[in-house]
Amino acid sequence: MSRRVISLHELTEPVHWEVGNSLSSISRTTLTGGVSEGVELVTLKNPSIEISVIPTRGMGLLGGAALGYPLGWQSPVQRPVHPSFVDLSASNGLGWLTGFNEFLCRCGIGWNGPPGDDDEGSPVENPLTLHGRIANIPADNVSLFIDESDGSVGITGQVRECGLFGTNLTLEVEYRLPAEEPRFHVRDVITNDASRPAEVELLYHINVGPPFLEDGSVIAVSADAVAPRDPRAAEGIEDWSKCGPPESGFAEQAYYFNTSRLPTGHAAMVLANRNRDLAVEVAFDPDVLPHGAVWKNTAAVEDGYVIGLEPATDFPNHRSFERAEGRLKSIAPGEQLVTELSVSVLASTDTIQNTIAAAESLEPVIHRSAGNGFSPS
Amino acid sequence: MSRRVISLHELTEPVHWEVGNSLSSISRTTLTGGVSEGVELVTLKNPSIEISVIPTRGMGLLGGAALGYPLGWQSPVQRPVHPSFVDLSASNGLGWLTGFNEFLCRCGIGWNGPPGDDDEGSPVENPLTLHGRIANIPADNVSLFIDESDGSVGITGQVRECGLFGTNLTLEVEYRLPAEEPRFHVRDVITNDASRPAEVELLYHINVGPPFLEDGSVIAVSADAVAPRDPRAAEGIEDWSKCGPPESGFAEQAYYFNTSRLPTGHAAMVLANRNRDLAVEVAFDPDVLPHGAVWKNTAAVEDGYVIGLEPATDFPNHRSFERAEGRLKSIAPGEQLVTELSVSVLASTDTIQNTIAAAESLEPVIHRSAGNGFSPS
Amino acid sequence: MSRRVISLHELTEPVHWEVGNSLSSISRTTLTGGVSEGVELVTLKNPSIEISVIPTRGMGLLGGAALGYPLGWQSPVQRPVHPSFVDLSASNGLGWLTGFNEFLCRCGIGWNGPPGDDDEGSPVENPLTLHGRIANIPADNVSLFIDESDGSVGITGQVRECGLFGTNLTLEVEYRLPAEEPRFHVRDVITNDASRPAEVELLYHINVGPPFLEDGSVIAVSADAVAPRDPRAAEGIEDWSKCGPPESGFAEQAYYFNTSRLPTGHAAMVLANRNRDLAVEVAFDPDVLPHGAVWKNTAAVEDGYVIGLEPATDFPNHRSFERAEGRLKSIAPGEQLVTELSVSVLASTDTIQNTIAAAESLEPVIHRSAGNGFSPS
Repeated sequence: MSRRVISLHELTEPVHWEVGNSLSSISRTTLTGGVSEGVELVTLKNPSIEISVIPTRGMGLLGGAALGYPLGWQSPVQRPVHPSFVDLSASNGLGWLTGFNEFLCRCGIGWNGPPGDDDEGSPVENPLTLHGRIANIPADNVSLFIDESDGSVGITGQVRECGLFGTNLTLEVEYRLPAEEPRFHVRDVITNDASRPAEVELLYHINVGPPFLEDGSVIAVSADAVAPRDPRAAEGIEDWSKCGPPESGFAEQAYYFNTSRLPTGHAAMVLANRNRDLAVEVAFDPDVLPHGAVWKNTAAVEDGYVIGLEPATDFPNHRSFERAEGRLKSIAPGEQLVTELSVSVLASTDTIQNTIAAAESLEPVIHRSAGNGFSPS
Repeated sequence: MSRRVISLHELTEPVHWEVGNSLSSISRTTLTGGVSEGVELVTLKNPSIEISVIPTRGMGLLGGAALGYPLGWQSPVQRPVHPSFVDLSASNGLGWLTGFNEFLCRCGIGWNGPPGDDDEGSPVENPLTLHGRIANIPADNVSLFIDESDGSVGITGQVRECGLFGTNLTLEVEYRLPAEEPRFHVRDVITNDASRPAEVELLYHINVGPPFLEDGSVIAVSADAVAPRDPRAAEGIEDWSKCGPPESGFAEQAYYFNTSRLPTGHAAMVLANRNRDLAVEVAFDPDVLPHGAVWKNTAAVEDGYVIGLEPATDFPNHRSFERAEGRLKSIAPGEQLVTELSVSVLASTDTIQNTIAAAESLEPVIHRSAGNGFSPS
Repeated sequence: MSRRVISLHELTEPVHWEVGNSLSSISRTTLTGGVSEGVELVTLKNPSIEISVIPTRGMGLLGGAALGYPLGWQSPVQRPVHPSFVDLSASNGLGWLTGFNEFLCRCGIGWNGPPGDDDEGSPVENPLTLHGRIANIPADNVSLFIDESDGSVGITGQVRECGLFGTNLTLEVEYRLPAEEPRFHVRDVITNDASRPAEVELLYHINVGPPFLEDGSVIAVSADAVAPRDPRAAEGIEDWSKCGPPESGFAEQAYYFNTSRLPTGHAAMVLANRNRDLAVEVAFDPDVLPHGAVWKNTAAVEDGYVIGLEPATDFPNHRSFERAEGRLKSIAPGEQLVTELSVSVLASTDTIQNTIAAAESLEPVIHRSAGNGFSPS
């Protein structure tokens, strides 16, 4: 693999790269105005897909487009918010919601899930705040690369989640676009830089809106088991895989999965449109991301009509519950946790039907009430 | 009306504009150093008045001068504070006070008043913080304009107060200076971008210091009723309209008003100096801003010797109290609330005396103790 | 004294200055990337020492080198953190720890010590947050100077700690390097800009790591009395002056001192290496800084292996305790508190042994348990 590497600050104008008939590019914008002032946005393109990465927001992925269809959703938070304007501690630890609008947002890496004290955690990090800190820490050492051997383009960056007497973790993120396909790959490496083992939680909050989401869209997850997060989700357990139209006042429902492998070798979470001719597929290794959640928030479009596909190391319960259930990852000093996933846009009815059918044929155990070790209630 | 519009980023050097013998101008500074680093300041001038607007602080108005007299006060917070240095949640929700030094500061727009939980409000916004968020959110889409038909100059900008599962409001602000008079006009439009009705509170915290304020200055408000906010204010109810000298250790007093219309057609709040030959008048429509407060904080000059004239949609009590009293504005989805006011500097003894007399002739009901639906105690 | 003064913004390229054979310099960097984006760093050098000051972080001193040895320590917080990314209120008031990595960090100036409510303090500053606000407020009016009479170079800056109804303090900081010696001088002036007396606490958190710190290093403090902060420190009271090797999981120990004068005229706190041929000495006037702490945090290197030498106006207990014990400084309106200290690197075994012996010969009273007015428990 022969990589041409460009540091973010060298990227003063767009770079184009041609392999065969395929033209890829990397460009950069520094946003101005309002709460986006100073936010860096890096856009990677191949002929089928473009994605915009936000180094300033923990290497989150704002959105993009594939095959002409938008990737993302309409959050009430309209533009990327510079972390200096997000107060995670606000609103009893729910301040994270004032910065959340990404297509792909990491929740972690010291913890994810709801806010509140974790009696066994570090006092210097209590109370935990919703979904952790990583999405609101700017990345450092950001570089772009072009792989001359296969024409792929990508971006890498480091995010440090740390404090004296607390966690001391480095997250290294890589996004890579192949030369031509409507797909991108994510590779994350978390290193424990402390002298003692570190607990880690990582959830990929991948948020898909129209046109993938519409009345009649279907969700598929390759899983052994599915459970509702709470009584509200239990109300809809029979229809967890079905999506309704935008509905003002719809209260969110979350479903938890133990992920498992398809015959193709990976685990998958899919959202397909009504006609099953357009879908987003998230593929990953269930040994590394053995859990996951589906977030059904089919509220009004202006309130955020969206489905979250969320492969994870854990369920997004409070960390104290996940610890008790044995789902925390522990990383030894100096050791690393490597997670990978691919996000593809599928536009072939056959492929989509086959993937859904394969996932459904796993016939997961369906828990009809909350609890059972999946969630506290 | 034919407007020449200039976006903020195009304003790289001052723009001058002449109508008849009148020269107006618009200029821009980006502040550097300390907590002001990166704060944008836009100064609008006509021959009689200049005002400096802070897009970075929610389109607040820092201060200025009219007829050679300064508009503003001496807050212990000396320079404009970039919102990234203001922690609204700090000090049990009183952090707002570490950024407050404007001549005109909006309190709102989801709420104003003291901090604390609002059980009927959105959990993602609890606890409320003092005087809301709008003054510490940077504006977007900032533009300057020159109206070629009448020689007025102005500035517009948008501020978004939003978060997932919370409010989703857009405030559009316009300040306009006429071609010659020592006056400016404010026009605010609040739009509810959510799918459900939104509660709104807006108070204009207009803070006037010397030379308008001095020992013997007088306050006039066109009102039906006046009430003290609390027992401390009740102590001074007989003298609510009289201002004393700077007094170290003076504890603030606030008076609440139901505003009403003068024969001239608008409601007014006025602060005039001892000689009644210099005054600031705030004029507005009492149907839109039916309430208001006067903030008497005649502390030592170095502690902030100031009178606040505060027309509002509500009283600056906690939102839960205002809801119970039926004073919250509700905006339907997609609908707008438009508020307007004018701030004038008066230097004619006749005009000042007449305005004061007109307000006094309304003979408001005076409540001598706190409560009575005006405030909780 | 004839000073050539350069404002920070004029310092676009390094300035060099020669006195005799001695070459000194001043240079400036604006950091980019991650949480350091926008942090200003000013480096002062003489032939023996260099120090890097962070105006953006309250005029703290990041670190440097003297006689080829690094000044500083390896905090899990690796790079200087812009205050806009530090939430002091986070983690029940312990958020300060997410920005702490300096060689010299001021704790104050309204208070230092642990977080929590101070019932006699201003409600607008409650709850107090760990070690106060000053280290996370950017400085203003930053200038560099070269003293042409003696070849010293220095930097000055102002930091304002203020808010309506709260403290109204200005800290003016000066660092000065002599022309040749491996030493720097600090002179701080705190002014009370309010109309009423202000309580002030100031502690210099001077943090020394390898090579000054190693297994067998010794600490010396010129003092009348020493006491452990708490039972954990009491465990090690007999060995308070001895340093061990890096030890994963070592729980910090803090010792409190009433400082006293050496025959040389000043008070001193010293950390010397095992061979007693390399030391850092902090010298100050015990009348102005009558108290102090030693922070033993001989944790693993990657967790922050460090000794803090901390001369102070008070002990870093909660302010309410210090008030009750009569250790708060009070500054009258308009008056100033001036504190000075020198930090020297010593490389002469004789000098080091003599300084240690002089301090030890004062034979301080050793309190073997916590309490006794030194700390609450």
